[in-house]
Amino acid sequence: MSGNSFGTLFRITTFGESHGRGLGVVIDGVPPGLALTEEEVQRELDRRKPGQSSVTTSRKESDEVHFLSGTFEGKTTGTPLAMVLYNSDQKSEAYEPIKDLYRPGHADYTYHRKYGIRDWRGSGRASGRETAARVAAGAVAKKLLRMRKIEITAYTLRAAGISCERRDLSVIEENPMRACDPEAAERMIARIEELKEIGDSVGGVVECRVSGLPAGIGEPVFAKLDAELARAVLSLGAVKGIEFGSGFAAADMRGSEHNDSPGKDGHRSNHSGGIVGGISNGEEVVFRAAVKPTSSISLPQDTIDTGGTERSIVTEGRHDPCICPRIVPVVEAMTALVFTDLMMQDLAFSSIMDTEVGR
Amino acid sequence: MSGNSFGTLFRITTFGESHGRGLGVVIDGVPPGLALTEEEVQRELDRRKPGQSSVTTSRKESDEVHFLSGTFEGKTTGTPLAMVLYNSDQKSEAYEPIKDLYRPGHADYTYHRKYGIRDWRGSGRASGRETAARVAAGAVAKKLLRMRKIEITAYTLRAAGISCERRDLSVIEENPMRACDPEAAERMIARIEELKEIGDSVGGVVECRVSGLPAGIGEPVFAKLDAELARAVLSLGAVKGIEFGSGFAAADMRGSEHNDSPGKDGHRSNHSGGIVGGISNGEEVVFRAAVKPTSSISLPQDTIDTGGTERSIVTEGRHDPCICPRIVPVVEAMTALVFTDLMMQDLAFSSIMDTEVGR
Amino acid sequence: MSGNSFGTLFRITTFGESHGRGLGVVIDGVPPGLALTEEEVQRELDRRKPGQSSVTTSRKESDEVHFLSGTFEGKTTGTPLAMVLYNSDQKSEAYEPIKDLYRPGHADYTYHRKYGIRDWRGSGRASGRETAARVAAGAVAKKLLRMRKIEITAYTLRAAGISCERRDLSVIEENPMRACDPEAAERMIARIEELKEIGDSVGGVVECRVSGLPAGIGEPVFAKLDAELARAVLSLGAVKGIEFGSGFAAADMRGSEHNDSPGKDGHRSNHSGGIVGGISNGEEVVFRAAVKPTSSISLPQDTIDTGGTERSIVTEGRHDPCICPRIVPVVEAMTALVFTDLMMQDLAFSSIMDTEVGR
Amino acid sequence: MSGNSFGTLFRITTFGESHGRGLGVVIDGVPPGLALTEEEVQRELDRRKPGQSSVTTSRKESDEVHFLSGTFEGKTTGTPLAMVLYNSDQKSEAYEPIKDLYRPGHADYTYHRKYGIRDWRGSGRASGRETAARVAAGAVAKKLLRMRKIEITAYTLRAAGISCERRDLSVIEENPMRACDPEAAERMIARIEELKEIGDSVGGVVECRVSGLPAGIGEPVFAKLDAELARAVLSLGAVKGIEFGSGFAAADMRGSEHNDSPGKDGHRSNHSGGIVGGISNGEEVVFRAAVKPTSSISLPQDTIDTGGTERSIVTEGRHDPCICPRIVPVVEAMTALVFTDLMMQDLAFSSIMDTEVGR
Repeated sequence: MSGNSFGTLFRITTFGESHGRGLGVVIDGVPPGLALTEEEVQRELDRRKPGQSSVTTSRKESDEVHFLSGTFEGKTTGTPLAMVLYNSDQKSEAYEPIKDLYRPGHADYTYHRKYGIRDWRGSGRASGRETAARVAAGAVAKKLLRMRKIEITAYTLRAAGISCERRDLSVIEENPMRACDPEAAERMIARIEELKEIGDSVGGVVECRVSGLPAGIGEPVFAKLDAELARAVLSLGAVKGIEFGSGFAAADMRGSEHNDSPGKDGHRSNHSGGIVGGISNGEEVVFRAAVKPTSSISLPQDTIDTGGTERSIVTEGRHDPCICPRIVPVVEAMTALVFTDLMMQDLAFSSIMDTEVGR
Repeated sequence: MSGNSFGTLFRITTFGESHGRGLGVVIDGVPPGLALTEEEVQRELDRRKPGQSSVTTSRKESDEVHFLSGTFEGKTTGTPLAMVLYNSDQKSEAYEPIKDLYRPGHADYTYHRKYGIRDWRGSGRASGRETAARVAAGAVAKKLLRMRKIEITAYTLRAAGISCERRDLSVIEENPMRACDPEAAERMIARIEELKEIGDSVGGVVECRVSGLPAGIGEPVFAKLDAELARAVLSLGAVKGIEFGSGFAAADMRGSEHNDSPGKDGHRSNHSGGIVGGISNGEEVVFRAAVKPTSSISLPQDTIDTGGTERSIVTEGRHDPCICPRIVPVVEAMTALVFTDLMMQDLAFSSIMDTEVGR
Repeated sequence: MSGNSFGTLFRITTFGESHGRGLGVVIDGVPPGLALTEEEVQRELDRRKPGQSSVTTSRKESDEVHFLSGTFEGKTTGTPLAMVLYNSDQKSEAYEPIKDLYRPGHADYTYHRKYGIRDWRGSGRASGRETAARVAAGAVAKKLLRMRKIEITAYTLRAAGISCERRDLSVIEENPMRACDPEAAERMIARIEELKEIGDSVGGVVECRVSGLPAGIGEPVFAKLDAELARAVLSLGAVKGIEFGSGFAAADMRGSEHNDSPGKDGHRSNHSGGIVGGISNGEEVVFRAAVKPTSSISLPQDTIDTGGTERSIVTEGRHDPCICPRIVPVVEAMTALVFTDLMMQDLAFSSIMDTEVGR
Repeated sequence: MSGNSFGTLFRITTFGESHGRGLGVVIDGVPPGLALTEEEVQRELDRRKPGQSSVTTSRKESDEVHFLSGTFEGKTTGTPLAMVLYNSDQKSEAYEPIKDLYRPGHADYTYHRKYGIRDWRGSGRASGRETAARVAAGAVAKKLLRMRKIEITAYTLRAAGISCERRDLSVIEENPMRACDPEAAERMIARIEELKEIGDSVGGVVECRVSGLPAGIGEPVFAKLDAELARAVLSLGAVKGIEFGSGFAAADMRGSEHNDSPGKDGHRSNHSGGIVGGISNGEEVVFRAAVKPTSSISLPQDTIDTGGTERSIVTEGRHDPCICPRIVPVVEAMTALVFTDLMMQDLAFSSIMDTEVGR
């Protein structure tokens, strides 16, 4: 399993399983001199942690972050920043009865086929808990971007078949769905609680907006801004699709409708989602991610065991009936990682020609 | 502009502008001993070349491939395979009148903002012609995959608002739309010709299927198979979204519906699109890409010039009213590059433990 | 500070400072199913740890390794293997008096100039203690190579101006110098103890041999086997040069002397050090590293403070009068990392063409 | 054969064989707006080309560079710069008689063992001619560095057993040896002509100096400045060793001798060769490379054929009796590539914190 690193200049490497000793992340490429405390990172982690409401799992994971390296007297030093979250509330025995069964929709089967061995305790590395490490890293990236007035905001746009009817970014952190419409949020919650009652789950759509961006971010042709964001967001196991600006609706549009005309004060429309030719055009970057229903449900399901015999499986346990509210900070984190890295790359090229900049 | 390389072990680097001396690709990581001719690569290029029908541009580009290195006596040697397509039918003077105007929907504006300089002749590096180099590289990847019985087939699923009603892969190369339903294809063509007549363009949806795959391909957590495919396909300037399996429809599904149960003879459904936890599960990999309408249209549009003054622009020229049929081979090429690279990575890990394999 | 990762497929990322909370390494690319215990890794770490003899520092660092992730029931799972060594015997107050002075020969000055901030406690990230993480990672690489009968042995060839007169690899672990000649070792020790007494230090030459290698390892043209080994070994702060086979002596040789003729049973000589054109030729790989004298000495030295004022400095503390015996396991570790990674790369290319191999 | 790319941000990919259609390089990461002509690049290539004097081969290779992409109206555009040198004076038939024999000291054997196939015409990819592509790329890097007042100068310090007694950088381009001492150069030439007469060859030592450097270049811990330079220079097939500053002599020095004390106006000595802890300290960077004798000699040698039978071989042809004068520009080129890339990396980190810099 290579593939646990992400980024070129602002590069993270994550590790850890949900029921091992802990999980963590090393960031290589943090600039020196950035004021940074564990508390700041913890705040982002608390947005992702379980047990926040009736629509999230009731598991308790403290998700307490510890810096192992990279800071000195409250500031980053330019050396790798290692952060660890030690595991505590793991109840591995709950997984013992199903350790020889493949849970439908889970990575049990694919991990076993790929590696020939599988840590069955709480999904091992394939657990959603892995994303906590990304959120910790994203907190650092967000801080760097905020210094440049760039803000990233994700929210639940649709869940359980219910769409937000307005986009009010100020209410997101005030409702358990992290939805941009409090009325829709209430209806989502009611519907999700019903599904939770019968042991089922449901998906949704998360939208993300990045404001304050300069034009010029993104490296054609393979490291296009949208390509990198797509990779980042699709690297979340629960995400099954992404679209930028008008997205799939663009497939039915005409060129004369879709083309965003540049004007004196910015573009007159934003069908492109702020990205043209893989480069930011100065408008808001907007994309949506399709979130599948949580795989872990309590209803009985057909499956096979590791020997290939057909069996029925019931997954007890505390699971998220809808993962949208908890995936919101993870989408923000991945987005922040992409922008920080691409901005650094862009600055490298412009700075080498600017002989006034540098040592 | 970094970002012109793609892949880790089977790694391509592309170069070239639409109206420069030529464009090309270097593949580093071609295994030695593969029989390979320019003719084989040419066949794939001919599927992408302009001028194939009434729904594609009438430009003539020979797109003739030349191997500069990497083969000897008809076989690859393990050294980099460099392929070049020299430019010939370029009419740069056609772009002269609009060289100071930003064409809406084009990368003119973003390139200028990023680089401070822009090759205005035929969109320069941002031209769709850049993808010819990818198709050439993809032809080699496809040949390697075919040796392992892996087949990649893309096709137009929807265009100009018209969807295919069946998926008959045998008819794809027999209609100019490369659609999987010949009746739908005819209606698409009629509609596109109408739009062409009035100088407008339209988008569509391209679907891609990969069959013959083993389980186990994809490297969690950031190099997940779907993440890598998303990056590959979104690196095409015309693509604005991607979805796997049920995709955005999964957002409205329940866990009990979406979960694919493994059975004795494979999975009982394929809502996941053949990928779980970022790893292939042995089923067909299926994804769809949203293709935006071609930016180049002949209708007058609002824009600004490089000095910021508001202007009107009319783009004369020979453009594709719908790019779907020509993007099909490019999607296949990018998909082949991803699979070849990830299979090599997977083989490296399994081979190092298999002490019978190797020198 | 990017640059804390090493390798392509078997890729390590290290972190940590000498007086922070700990230091560690994440290995991404460990194949699944490898039996591995903390004890095995500890054995290699114990070879590097301080306090082993009169010629090494008397500091006590337990250097106890903890696996945080990547194994399950005694075997690797294919997920990242994170290993941490928590710090314990740190006496940071010893560094307080000199925290504003640059120690000559140390990285104090260069780190401060590069980062504008410096963790002055025990050299921070620039401490030789950083190499413990490499040794931990190298232990895993060595185990993989040993499965393929490849053995790596480094030893002190020269120290304090005294050269070994024979190369007896069986005695290396039996003398505190890790020299290949016990008589020479005794003379080295006597001389080093004298220098230690007066507060000075001295350098030496470490030689490394890799046996059991197949021909064919190394990836031309930039990832040549010797280029990768050179990078690996020069990434040790104390190493100031490297040479392969005849090395610098080759500069004075004629082609007719230096060329190694292939014969029926291998080559008739090994002036090339087992590498031609960047690829192993099946002979033993042999190289030597020049180790500079330890920078930390107790004699008074001229320097400047962080304000630029000229000052005198005396560095108290427990330092290695000659680092050769402790650098030996580090050289082996770096060598093992290079070979494991290059073998995996080589296997990827050969395996993709061998359609019998793989899933 | 992966490994044909070099660099992270200023990244080159080379291709081509000595007797194929041509060889070339793609540079990804050239900043936009740099004035650049083929003539400038040609000047550097002319320093490497054969046939310059009695101590180099009499082969005629025009080595004429052609830009295929990346410039527009005399300036770089930020897109990949592809440069090709088409082959012309190839006499492949000269190699036909020995195509089944392995030339001692050549990569014939190792390439055949690695790839199972070998382009025997003029050494194929293993030819020294491959380095022309590096020189072309290095010309661009040198121009960027010169804008920042950084100058790289390499020269022959020793050849045929004769050392320069002074280092006069002004005479280097005025003698065929590119030596820094014209008297020594004359004696070198006399000795080399004697060896050429009898069909033998000889090696030497090339030294390289980089002046005008700021402190702070180099990325610890694995991408140390010296580690990257070592990899760069050892990636030349003829180089068998490298040393920085005092180099191997440091092995016999004491700490009190070797440590360079920082003073008010720079360091009081430069035993470290301008690099401490992997980071430039503001002094001149100095290193030496051991160059082996040219493998191609006309004297009869023992070898085996591809079937394993012992044979005698005589290599006719026009070869360099001493490669030092022609390797000088290649060492400069590789050095320039390393510095450009590391400076860009350094600028990326400092610029992201400097919110006044950037778009």
